[in-house]
Amino acid sequence: MIKARWEQLAEALKGSSVSGIVLMPGPNMFYMAGLSMGLSERPTLLVVCSDGKACFVMPKLERQKGEMISQRLKNEGVNFDVAVYSYTDEEGPGKAFNEALKSPSGTWALEYRSLRMLEYSLMKRAMGDFSWVDAGEIMKELRMVKDQDELSSMQEAARLADLGADLAKKMLAPGKRASEIALEIEGQLKLQGAQAVGMSLATGVDTAIPHAGTSSSIIESGDLAWLDLCANVNGYWSDITRTYAIGKISNELRKIYEIVVEAQEHARMNTKPGMSGAEVDALARDVIASYGYGDRFIHRTGHGLGLEIHEEPYVVASNKTPLPVGSTFTIEPGIYLPGKGGVRVEDDVVLTPSGARSLTCYPRNLLDELR
Amino acid sequence: MIKARWEQLAEALKGSSVSGIVLMPGPNMFYMAGLSMGLSERPTLLVVCSDGKACFVMPKLERQKGEMISQRLKNEGVNFDVAVYSYTDEEGPGKAFNEALKSPSGTWALEYRSLRMLEYSLMKRAMGDFSWVDAGEIMKELRMVKDQDELSSMQEAARLADLGADLAKKMLAPGKRASEIALEIEGQLKLQGAQAVGMSLATGVDTAIPHAGTSSSIIESGDLAWLDLCANVNGYWSDITRTYAIGKISNELRKIYEIVVEAQEHARMNTKPGMSGAEVDALARDVIASYGYGDRFIHRTGHGLGLEIHEEPYVVASNKTPLPVGSTFTIEPGIYLPGKGGVRVEDDVVLTPSGARSLTCYPRNLLDELR
Repeated sequence: MIKARWEQLAEALKGSSVSGIVLMPGPNMFYMAGLSMGLSERPTLLVVCSDGKACFVMPKLERQKGEMISQRLKNEGVNFDVAVYSYTDEEGPGKAFNEALKSPSGTWALEYRSLRMLEYSLMKRAMGDFSWVDAGEIMKELRMVKDQDELSSMQEAARLADLGADLAKKMLAPGKRASEIALEIEGQLKLQGAQAVGMSLATGVDTAIPHAGTSSSIIESGDLAWLDLCANVNGYWSDITRTYAIGKISNELRKIYEIVVEAQEHARMNTKPGMSGAEVDALARDVIASYGYGDRFIHRTGHGLGLEIHEEPYVVASNKTPLPVGSTFTIEPGIYLPGKGGVRVEDDVVLTPSGARSLTCYPRNLLDELR
Repeated sequence: MIKARWEQLAEALKGSSVSGIVLMPGPNMFYMAGLSMGLSERPTLLVVCSDGKACFVMPKLERQKGEMISQRLKNEGVNFDVAVYSYTDEEGPGKAFNEALKSPSGTWALEYRSLRMLEYSLMKRAMGDFSWVDAGEIMKELRMVKDQDELSSMQEAARLADLGADLAKKMLAPGKRASEIALEIEGQLKLQGAQAVGMSLATGVDTAIPHAGTSSSIIESGDLAWLDLCANVNGYWSDITRTYAIGKISNELRKIYEIVVEAQEHARMNTKPGMSGAEVDALARDVIASYGYGDRFIHRTGHGLGLEIHEEPYVVASNKTPLPVGSTFTIEPGIYLPGKGGVRVEDDVVLTPSGARSLTCYPRNLLDELR
């Protein structure tokens, strides 16, 4: 599998005009080398040149990992020899950058969304001025379509997301605090095998803020609450949102709830291969607009999902590219009424030849579940 | 407090030659605006100009937060009017960047360690070519010395770290798995009030890798194990490492254990105001070198600690600047014998006029605790 990825990358590099690609700690380095590392003040790169050379530049305390990976890639038949250039904290990264990037030229593919001024300035010092394009354009083509191993990790992550949605339903009640419920859900999911969990459990007027985070106030009857939950399995994420009505909610909130559920189902059921992100976005948006709430749906309909919680393909009006079969993304329309409350419903789907198959399956309409 | 920070920043900008500073989601934006946000594909900036203007550039779905913060800063007497420029997912960030950065010139202070090619290219498109310096140099002067509120958060975070070290001592035993122990510790600390927890619990030969992560193998008698644990309270981190000997370990591992404990204590006890990071680094390094293990101590002695797990001041040979009173950093020498095992002992200290006061207090020498 790793061999196939390197072959695809080599081919993509050959088909482009770049001298090479520079991958950063994070999903792309994980995808190509299985190396799971965070960004830190110690710059780390995986440089893959179009001429078949490759190398790590990394702090000395990571060197062992780099060498193990290089050996593993060789064992699995990868056609790149991956050298390791390392530096100590005392000497700093300058020399290792100079050695690793000694005879480059032309245009480089850099990770637009993670390569920082730190690495850019070290690269400039090593190579002089150079032009660059976004490495994301190359990597998204490799990563967007998931293979069976990836899909089975995502299915398991989605199972945990469904479990979290169910736990929330069982725990949400007037007098309780969202922050305590969130903690309990996180612990349960980790016991069930989630390698990481991210969560916002917003209640009351906080639900009107799409990225509200977890509320600290006491839950009251008449509140809306939504759980936006991500769970990670083998590096792959799920991302679910369910909205709950605590006790009897106002007619206006009830109305937007039903509209969002309808819009989400409409989009999910009518997504077909060949549609662009823009077309899927419009499926949900048109329903909401038809009820007069178009200006209260203040974000895109969804985003790709995989090694990142947000990745290609984006389900947004600006994405005119057809969504490929095998790609995985969220469908998550919402309506937000400032000072009153908001509703969002989100599923993870994989695009199949016959349409969008949902990985998350928990019931979407919970309007009358907590009365 | 927030007012004092803005006054300090205004003064720092006046004393520099930059047109302004661009702060990114993360510790610096949190420090100046109390806004806790992660980096995403939607660029977000807090721009503070030397001429007294300031603004957020942010996605529309965060706009409410930006406006609330702007109002709060005004209420607290901050002498900057913070405008908010926002963009929808559909239109993208280009126009908001153009409006926010319409009449700039000269040199800008950018966050070297978090501003990405994504923001850099949008800024270049808005302003044309410009030169830049590292905003970290300005912000570190503000953030390095902690005030009483910050120190009390850090003391509480350190208490949780000590608690984690104690939980590990009680749970580590032959036949158990580090990954299960780590999960239990994380849950306990969150119940005790940790807002976030980061942890590696390495066992056996994995301990020879400084950044090993949590081991998946079964613990055996004769293993070393170390817990490297970070706990967050109110945004502020603690960071502790303790090494445990499971049953009877080899004489060689026993020897390096005692050397590391001696080196760590020596550095902690002899750190004085006026010393540079390099001098404190040498305190630990000289002890280890005197026993002939200098080349097995493959990282710096420590790093600053606060809103970030790694921040200024660094306790490293290249840091010749005196450590200021009120700064907080780790002291964490280690010795690593590949294929055999490694030992590290880490405390968090605050520098006082009389020396380094340790925030973490759990016993350092646990050689004979688990026999």
